[in-house]
Amino acid sequence: MKALAATIASLTLFASSLAHAGQASSSPASNSVTLDDVRSVSPALERFAQGTIQGDLWKRPGLSPRDRSIVTVAALIARNQTVEMPRHVTLALDNGVKPGELSEIVTHLAFYSGWANAMAAVAVTKDVFAQRRIATDQLPPASPTPLPLDEATEARRATGVAQNFGAVAPGMVQYTTDVLFRDLWLRPDLAPRDRSLVTVSALVASGQVAQIPYHLNRAMDNGLTREQAAEALTHLAFYAGWPNAFSALPVFKEVFEKRPG
Amino acid sequence: MKALAATIASLTLFASSLAHAGQASSSPASNSVTLDDVRSVSPALERFAQGTIQGDLWKRPGLSPRDRSIVTVAALIARNQTVEMPRHVTLALDNGVKPGELSEIVTHLAFYSGWANAMAAVAVTKDVFAQRRIATDQLPPASPTPLPLDEATEARRATGVAQNFGAVAPGMVQYTTDVLFRDLWLRPDLAPRDRSLVTVSALVASGQVAQIPYHLNRAMDNGLTREQAAEALTHLAFYAGWPNAFSALPVFKEVFEKRPG
Amino acid sequence: MKALAATIASLTLFASSLAHAGQASSSPASNSVTLDDVRSVSPALERFAQGTIQGDLWKRPGLSPRDRSIVTVAALIARNQTVEMPRHVTLALDNGVKPGELSEIVTHLAFYSGWANAMAAVAVTKDVFAQRRIATDQLPPASPTPLPLDEATEARRATGVAQNFGAVAPGMVQYTTDVLFRDLWLRPDLAPRDRSLVTVSALVASGQVAQIPYHLNRAMDNGLTREQAAEALTHLAFYAGWPNAFSALPVFKEVFEKRPG
Repeated sequence: MKALAATIASLTLFASSLAHAGQASSSPASNSVTLDDVRSVSPALERFAQGTIQGDLWKRPGLSPRDRSIVTVAALIARNQTVEMPRHVTLALDNGVKPGELSEIVTHLAFYSGWANAMAAVAVTKDVFAQRRIATDQLPPASPTPLPLDEATEARRATGVAQNFGAVAPGMVQYTTDVLFRDLWLRPDLAPRDRSLVTVSALVASGQVAQIPYHLNRAMDNGLTREQAAEALTHLAFYAGWPNAFSALPVFKEVFEKRPG
Repeated sequence: MKALAATIASLTLFASSLAHAGQASSSPASNSVTLDDVRSVSPALERFAQGTIQGDLWKRPGLSPRDRSIVTVAALIARNQTVEMPRHVTLALDNGVKPGELSEIVTHLAFYSGWANAMAAVAVTKDVFAQRRIATDQLPPASPTPLPLDEATEARRATGVAQNFGAVAPGMVQYTTDVLFRDLWLRPDLAPRDRSLVTVSALVASGQVAQIPYHLNRAMDNGLTREQAAEALTHLAFYAGWPNAFSALPVFKEVFEKRPG
Repeated sequence: MKALAATIASLTLFASSLAHAGQASSSPASNSVTLDDVRSVSPALERFAQGTIQGDLWKRPGLSPRDRSIVTVAALIARNQTVEMPRHVTLALDNGVKPGELSEIVTHLAFYSGWANAMAAVAVTKDVFAQRRIATDQLPPASPTPLPLDEATEARRATGVAQNFGAVAPGMVQYTTDVLFRDLWLRPDLAPRDRSLVTVSALVASGQVAQIPYHLNRAMDNGLTREQAAEALTHLAFYAGWPNAFSALPVFKEVFEKRPG
């Protein structure tokens, strides 16, 4: 049992998970794949897990472990990959992502990766929250005081979309304004920069190349640096696969090049 | 138990589910996420579920609850999202989708979203059918009398594809004619308009933008109105995520604009 | 029980599975969907399974059953479709794919379809390996003697990518060289031609059209014939859905036409 716990902790990539590994073994994480499992199918994969990913990727200086957890959890939810979610939701808490932030990430991705993806994430996250004794009073309320809205920027966005598509799908245009940009994006318990990082990660992870330019620009307007964006993409190569990262690469390049300064 | 059943029924979005909620609680739906689960991770998500989605989206007049169920089930199967399938296959029956139509939707998506997606849908649907005592005699036979074929239109389609791709992948071109357009599409227990609605929904839900123009035009030839198509897209924004809907939006616009009249 | 085993064997598509059906019924495959399940939802789907797919597709001469298994397993892993994996990993062994080759396929797709896809495949494959008494000594070591590297070709690739993207995402460019092309691709227990077949299948199966030209050319450089590539695409129409295959078709055509001779 101790060996198993150590193995799980090892694959969770950081020693900070270790303190919780005892509970984890009788928790959601116990359905997860262990390093022993990995080795029994591919000794090489164990080498890459411990060397390349744990020993190198997560330690790169361009993006904090907290941000890497946000990127990873967003990718897993966007791709509906429940098998790795318990491990990474737990690791996200260990890496400093607050329960309220995780709550907002799930909520945000209900809209940016589809309702059922959020429901699958709820099923995992509620167990992790129960195990960590995270109760509703630590979560953002249903209707908090919203962040102030940049009316000019939002008016420009809304007018552009309405002119292009208002006659095509008026309901969708209206929901985009009311539910997304005047409600979801103004929720205060996930900083706009982090909300943008979640969005861009989900877009890359699900191959939504056409939606990247708007949201990568928004992310950088919200404070994500160019180096952080590039590191998030590098991180996603591992968690969403090389083809998704490579298809996003020329789009990132063009956004970087077109931005002033 | 009663509270749980009520909660499940509430999240199934329509009171018509209520009558079956008692059975549902010991059925496939019991693996589903409840509103209590949702609240324990995100009170905001519960607000969106009950307000925006249940209280507003499903009640919009542009598309009937029956059609919304067809769109939702198609999206879930195309995206292989089993966690929400029991709920929505059950709701589809409540909303007037016939067992034979559900059977045809699964069969159709075996070809339009991949064989394994259909197998996952079979695993869910067989349990719902068992619970509702739907037996094989209510299902379409393996080889029914086919709908009449519009020989001229099909000849035009087949010739175009053969000229373009007959020398590239002759097997695929042949199967497209024999299995899809001279067999699957002629099965009478799902109306061509509904079959098209399933196809377009699956394409939007899985990001297959390049295949939308042909099938959206075909859908409208088969009787889907422009308003219904736009509402289906709006509905899919919630069930397949905003990025998929937004990537499809300019394609819908172009198809609408190019159609005569 | 005997009837069930026969049914499972029948759906596994080849008589060679029959010898193992007895074990299979108390194994990973027992979670799979049986032909009885299929029939209880769609008699038509059973007809397509036994007629079109088992009776025709898998017997086409353009691609061997072994190669069809490689294509199918790659598609299932790339699409994270665990429900059909036990059946097809088992069938792959029956069709002559070696345990070490399956191990390499999982390892390869950790990078080409994302880490969590490989973890889900590990969970299935370890059970199949246990059932077949395949131990670690039959698997490729973590660090085998690599295949010889074609330095000139690799230098050309690396230089091109570095010029294009070295300033955009230096970490990703470096990992692409070090981890993918100077490590993963040189692992000797999966022939480069088969590794390319896995890669191209995964790209088609997950709609990664933009990445197909490079890898289809590489596949043909590695010995995949034009006829085999076309048959793989035809096969993927069934296992990844017609839209993915149709979106890849013009790309295959262009690659075929541009290749000398």
